[in-house]
Amino acid sequence: LPPLDGYKCLNTGILERLNAGEIVIGDGGFVFALEKRGYVKAGPWTPEATVTHPEAVRQLHREFLRAGANVMQAFTFYASDDKLENRGQALKITGAQINEAACDLAREVAKEGDALVAGGVAQTPSYLSCKSETEVKAIFKKQLDVFVKKNVDFLIAEYFEHVEEAGWAVQVLKTSGKPVAASLCIGPEGDMHGVSPAECAIRLVKAGAQIVGVNCHFDPLTCVKTVKMMKEGVEKAGLKAHYMVQPLAYHTPDCNCQGFIDLPEFPFALEPRILTRWDMHQYAREAYNAGIHYIGGCCGYEPYHIRAVSEELAPERGFLPAASEKHGLWGAGLEMHTKPWVRARSRREYWENIRPASGRPKCPSLSTPESWGVTKGHSDLLQHKEATSTQEMKHVLEKQKKVKSSA
Amino acid sequence: LPPLDGYKCLNTGILERLNAGEIVIGDGGFVFALEKRGYVKAGPWTPEATVTHPEAVRQLHREFLRAGANVMQAFTFYASDDKLENRGQALKITGAQINEAACDLAREVAKEGDALVAGGVAQTPSYLSCKSETEVKAIFKKQLDVFVKKNVDFLIAEYFEHVEEAGWAVQVLKTSGKPVAASLCIGPEGDMHGVSPAECAIRLVKAGAQIVGVNCHFDPLTCVKTVKMMKEGVEKAGLKAHYMVQPLAYHTPDCNCQGFIDLPEFPFALEPRILTRWDMHQYAREAYNAGIHYIGGCCGYEPYHIRAVSEELAPERGFLPAASEKHGLWGAGLEMHTKPWVRARSRREYWENIRPASGRPKCPSLSTPESWGVTKGHSDLLQHKEATSTQEMKHVLEKQKKVKSSA
Amino acid sequence: LPPLDGYKCLNTGILERLNAGEIVIGDGGFVFALEKRGYVKAGPWTPEATVTHPEAVRQLHREFLRAGANVMQAFTFYASDDKLENRGQALKITGAQINEAACDLAREVAKEGDALVAGGVAQTPSYLSCKSETEVKAIFKKQLDVFVKKNVDFLIAEYFEHVEEAGWAVQVLKTSGKPVAASLCIGPEGDMHGVSPAECAIRLVKAGAQIVGVNCHFDPLTCVKTVKMMKEGVEKAGLKAHYMVQPLAYHTPDCNCQGFIDLPEFPFALEPRILTRWDMHQYAREAYNAGIHYIGGCCGYEPYHIRAVSEELAPERGFLPAASEKHGLWGAGLEMHTKPWVRARSRREYWENIRPASGRPKCPSLSTPESWGVTKGHSDLLQHKEATSTQEMKHVLEKQKKVKSSA
Amino acid sequence: LPPLDGYKCLNTGILERLNAGEIVIGDGGFVFALEKRGYVKAGPWTPEATVTHPEAVRQLHREFLRAGANVMQAFTFYASDDKLENRGQALKITGAQINEAACDLAREVAKEGDALVAGGVAQTPSYLSCKSETEVKAIFKKQLDVFVKKNVDFLIAEYFEHVEEAGWAVQVLKTSGKPVAASLCIGPEGDMHGVSPAECAIRLVKAGAQIVGVNCHFDPLTCVKTVKMMKEGVEKAGLKAHYMVQPLAYHTPDCNCQGFIDLPEFPFALEPRILTRWDMHQYAREAYNAGIHYIGGCCGYEPYHIRAVSEELAPERGFLPAASEKHGLWGAGLEMHTKPWVRARSRREYWENIRPASGRPKCPSLSTPESWGVTKGHSDLLQHKEATSTQEMKHVLEKQKKVKSSA
Repeated sequence: LPPLDGYKCLNTGILERLNAGEIVIGDGGFVFALEKRGYVKAGPWTPEATVTHPEAVRQLHREFLRAGANVMQAFTFYASDDKLENRGQALKITGAQINEAACDLAREVAKEGDALVAGGVAQTPSYLSCKSETEVKAIFKKQLDVFVKKNVDFLIAEYFEHVEEAGWAVQVLKTSGKPVAASLCIGPEGDMHGVSPAECAIRLVKAGAQIVGVNCHFDPLTCVKTVKMMKEGVEKAGLKAHYMVQPLAYHTPDCNCQGFIDLPEFPFALEPRILTRWDMHQYAREAYNAGIHYIGGCCGYEPYHIRAVSEELAPERGFLPAASEKHGLWGAGLEMHTKPWVRARSRREYWENIRPASGRPKCPSLSTPESWGVTKGHSDLLQHKEATSTQEMKHVLEKQKKVKSSA
Repeated sequence: LPPLDGYKCLNTGILERLNAGEIVIGDGGFVFALEKRGYVKAGPWTPEATVTHPEAVRQLHREFLRAGANVMQAFTFYASDDKLENRGQALKITGAQINEAACDLAREVAKEGDALVAGGVAQTPSYLSCKSETEVKAIFKKQLDVFVKKNVDFLIAEYFEHVEEAGWAVQVLKTSGKPVAASLCIGPEGDMHGVSPAECAIRLVKAGAQIVGVNCHFDPLTCVKTVKMMKEGVEKAGLKAHYMVQPLAYHTPDCNCQGFIDLPEFPFALEPRILTRWDMHQYAREAYNAGIHYIGGCCGYEPYHIRAVSEELAPERGFLPAASEKHGLWGAGLEMHTKPWVRARSRREYWENIRPASGRPKCPSLSTPESWGVTKGHSDLLQHKEATSTQEMKHVLEKQKKVKSSA
Repeated sequence: LPPLDGYKCLNTGILERLNAGEIVIGDGGFVFALEKRGYVKAGPWTPEATVTHPEAVRQLHREFLRAGANVMQAFTFYASDDKLENRGQALKITGAQINEAACDLAREVAKEGDALVAGGVAQTPSYLSCKSETEVKAIFKKQLDVFVKKNVDFLIAEYFEHVEEAGWAVQVLKTSGKPVAASLCIGPEGDMHGVSPAECAIRLVKAGAQIVGVNCHFDPLTCVKTVKMMKEGVEKAGLKAHYMVQPLAYHTPDCNCQGFIDLPEFPFALEPRILTRWDMHQYAREAYNAGIHYIGGCCGYEPYHIRAVSEELAPERGFLPAASEKHGLWGAGLEMHTKPWVRARSRREYWENIRPASGRPKCPSLSTPESWGVTKGHSDLLQHKEATSTQEMKHVLEKQKKVKSSA
Repeated sequence: LPPLDGYKCLNTGILERLNAGEIVIGDGGFVFALEKRGYVKAGPWTPEATVTHPEAVRQLHREFLRAGANVMQAFTFYASDDKLENRGQALKITGAQINEAACDLAREVAKEGDALVAGGVAQTPSYLSCKSETEVKAIFKKQLDVFVKKNVDFLIAEYFEHVEEAGWAVQVLKTSGKPVAASLCIGPEGDMHGVSPAECAIRLVKAGAQIVGVNCHFDPLTCVKTVKMMKEGVEKAGLKAHYMVQPLAYHTPDCNCQGFIDLPEFPFALEPRILTRWDMHQYAREAYNAGIHYIGGCCGYEPYHIRAVSEELAPERGFLPAASEKHGLWGAGLEMHTKPWVRARSRREYWENIRPASGRPKCPSLSTPESWGVTKGHSDLLQHKEATSTQEMKHVLEKQKKVKSSA
């Protein structure tokens, strides 16, 4: 590979890049990474740090940029006013302020490496509490106004559990004329009404999304599998799209359809599940082989995870990320270790085949999702169980009817 | 606990604090944390980032400060010239430059919260390759000169596998008149010549260290156990000292006497072993109960680990760290989650008793240290096996003889 | 439940019993149980012990009878002459001699409790090595002659991997006029040509089997799942049958389509997978709930496993097995233990929820089947890999063609 | 090795054999093996089957004999009248009847192979409930009378938790003039009063035992370790003895000083802990290397476990056991398997290194002993916790006092 001399210049848009067959590497999730660093509160998970601690947000952007990310997602997750309100935050900062600051920080760092800036909207509490399409769309519109004002490069509707709400978001974002990606937090079983990944993807493409995929909630291999199902559906329907995947950096083979939230370890004891950099190599290769060209991460990702994605795909991309100056490929940094058995680890075969121990002999390998007893075998009833009021329940049933009649 | 209003003012020295019975919270290790962020190379593990990427080092200091650390250790690990040379780095930056920058960064952040700045020296390749006491001491002296020039608050001789070399370091550091802490990277079996923790501690106190303890190489509970053995030895010998502990944030019940370096997962597949914040609560409590009052961390620590130490000891200290503004104690942040079974996790009993799954059913719980076949039952021969040249071997034998005759 | 007074008198045939809605409890597998006792050789797995050590075979029959089994399967497994020859046994005992002795032993013990005697045939090496339908059927006929001479109560064609061969066996056995059960050693993926469980069952019923199901190769829950698929297929086809299941007593969630033979632990390190009696309770209940009324076991079963099946279904059957005189239900035997914490184990909830440890922290929870690399994702090619000669390969391809054209 | 032609003729006594340097192979435990077969009730664990189901007891003796055992222990475990009474059995069979039948069965089978017959006594409830030395000795005497009448070849005082009671038993047994072995159910931490293995062994040798060792309660490697401690103690004291070991066939690295009874899996969910035959090879070799020449088994042993011990030590003994006619050494029986990857398992290296999976990903590797919370760090108080009446407690305290004053 050629020597590193700064970031590769990518002064073209997301669609041009994907159309040209380029790989676009995403960043990792900010809420979990900044929670560990002390700037985001688990539970609310709101991004007020863009205003209160911009240096921490900026630094994380920079680390992902160095790791090879081509996209700086403005840290606007859960920054809709209804969410901020719903979460009981008395921050005296508006969603718009947070989002504007987020865009500025993302742009500032993106320029250091010619990355793209994306603005995102996510599922709203308003949808779950039965607000009308008009009301929900108004929330997205308010967020979109900031992104347009700040002239982000493209838009992402992400972390939706219901394809209906995601479709509404896409419709709103499309009004901007900017490229739109749509990403659901679903697994192979489909969305919370049981709409299959294939059908979800078709609806999102028809709603106008140029890129579709999944993020969060499941581990990399599960997410790749889900996006493959989307791709097959879209192609079978005679449609066209690009594909994206931004999974967890946690092994979650024991999840049910709601993903890692129902695991008993969520969110404060997920450590033993964290993927190694070598797991990331496998993920990147499988995603690429599946025809997914926008490859990033979500909760649990640290910069070195994204660097591993970049390193795995360096042969295809033709260059290594800046942060590889501090990383020997496949353990090469151990070549000069004083102990012969540690030196022997400086090779690909060693790390590709390692089965790392947990050091926790009193812990199991797999957990039972906590919703299991409640929802076993009844995934389409899942949200009923969650509905905490009769009104919510009514709303859900109504929605299901709509979905079924429209299917 | 009282509401947070900035950092507690601690304008007194390390010994005054410890003499007054205060708890001093250390920071976490920088090499592993910055490796994950893309600024330190695994293998060499050298700290040139203080010069090349000061913003990254500064940010990590700040996060540990927010998490409650009272000490900012200047990021000078392995920054002796012989090490930099030995590691084959052609950095065109001298050890002195790195160390000066490290001190400036530590001081800059320490002032933001009235923390103390510590300068440190660690084991040298010169010692292992048979350089004389004079030569080895000259290396420490060179590093010390920077610390004195930069007027750090106290000094730490840390990460020594041989108490003899640590003793030499203490003797050099003592010439500065500053308080000196001495910390070995040993477990309950003692140093690489088989000198017991108790005997090691006695020698270090006699050499002039006011604080003794261990850091790195083993998990928290093993380190606490080792320091307890040190304390018992010192007290039995009629001596006095303060005690410190800065362990790994990895579970390592399966280590042999050389610690985590001999585990097959070192250093790139340790993820499943990472401690949760709840493990840190237990650690902090056990360390405190053992009479250890300087409590920090080493490799694997992220800021939230130190915050957990601070939170566990908040009743004793009378205040919470700044970063607790973004953390509900014992999962309190989940109180308003929409799912009842996730809400049910917002209590101490839940997290104290969780047995987190690895999500890796094909991996074992424990590994076999790689040196095992070679050294099983012959821990005092261990370094022979490591010696990569006849000369090294001769040197080791000679040293052993000296140790034995002096014992 | 009523007090025990000898075995329940069941002087009616297998079909009368099943037609009347009775539960019929099978015995466990003899080859693995007698291998542990020193009378069967792993590898050949042939039943010459019926002639050489009849006391051992008789005793095992008796133990299963005491445990509640209503069927004594004559120990004729793999006792076709071609198999005995193929396995290189120079036993100087013919298949007929072994089979006659087996029938006598089974009948002798069956009379002690009014159990039924079944005679069985299993897959032949002749089929795999391309012998014609006529040749293979001649082998079954030879075995059948013994069963008719000894007047067994019914016949079982079991442990077939290919539904085609099983169908041939059923056709032969039907000529006797006795009831015929057909049991394949397949999982949910179907037989070795990829014929689904549903389709397999339909073919076997059409061939004349009155009872269909699966045995061996997979763990109880997998087998129950497979038989459910068979039942759905048969019912959807408008046919009628009874269902049987005789699974392994090993947990095998990590098997591929070939079952436990491909696990690296087969056959000499399966111990950690052995089911507890409580696992058997769950199995018996799930089998019964699935509408399977002939419930027994295969490799790995010990008498106490069958007793647990009998105890779980005692409410439905109205009586306990004889061996329950030596067993407190759900741990009741511990009621008088001197330690309070052991006494506390004498209740159903305790044992139903136990997650037993392996005591093997260096072992994983799941293995990778050894054929995996070879056959991953190509289950219909699996037997190609196994074929050890060109001729076998040709035969297999030919058979596949036939199957496909007949499908 | 020479071809098998019946059992080796060993018409000399136990001491002559051990004095001559021969290896004596013991049998396995009967209570667990017969519980699985349906003839012993867990909880009481009493041996009335010698009278009620002699064929089952005889068959198990025969299987151990075939597996290579040189000793047939009469199945008299827990058959003292006080135990039978204490357990609430209304068997209408006396201890003497049971013990006589047990001796007859053992002798009958022993003659088939020239094995020795041993009679045994074990800990009594009378001792724990404060009966006097005279009373306890009277119980042993009553059992001894049967053994003398039946002319067993030697005597074993086994399964004692308190060396004091074991010493009393030895004194009684010695009056017969027959060789006496004494075996405690203790681990490296010593007996229930904290008397070390070394001290226990010394006391037993002084009391007259010619063979000392341990049985039950711990896994093979722990038991070998304990007997090594005994041997070192005896030799250091200038005494002489032979050594025996009869451990569990369960992995119990997670036990506390009370052994497997305190594990949550005891006694009905120990399956995942069962040793493989290959574990037995390792055990036999380590026991032999430690200078232990009487090597057998206890709870959990099946005949194939004893066969593995015999096979491992066949080079030293010069012959294989009868049951090896049904066992290929180190997997040799798989040599002709049709699948190449199964054939590849017919070699020592494969089985010696296998790390068998449990197939139970939701289970941990290690458990926490249930007495842990109660007794952590207070092993000498352990029996207080167990004492279920004030009177028992008083007795225990008294005994402790005695032990301490005599120590």
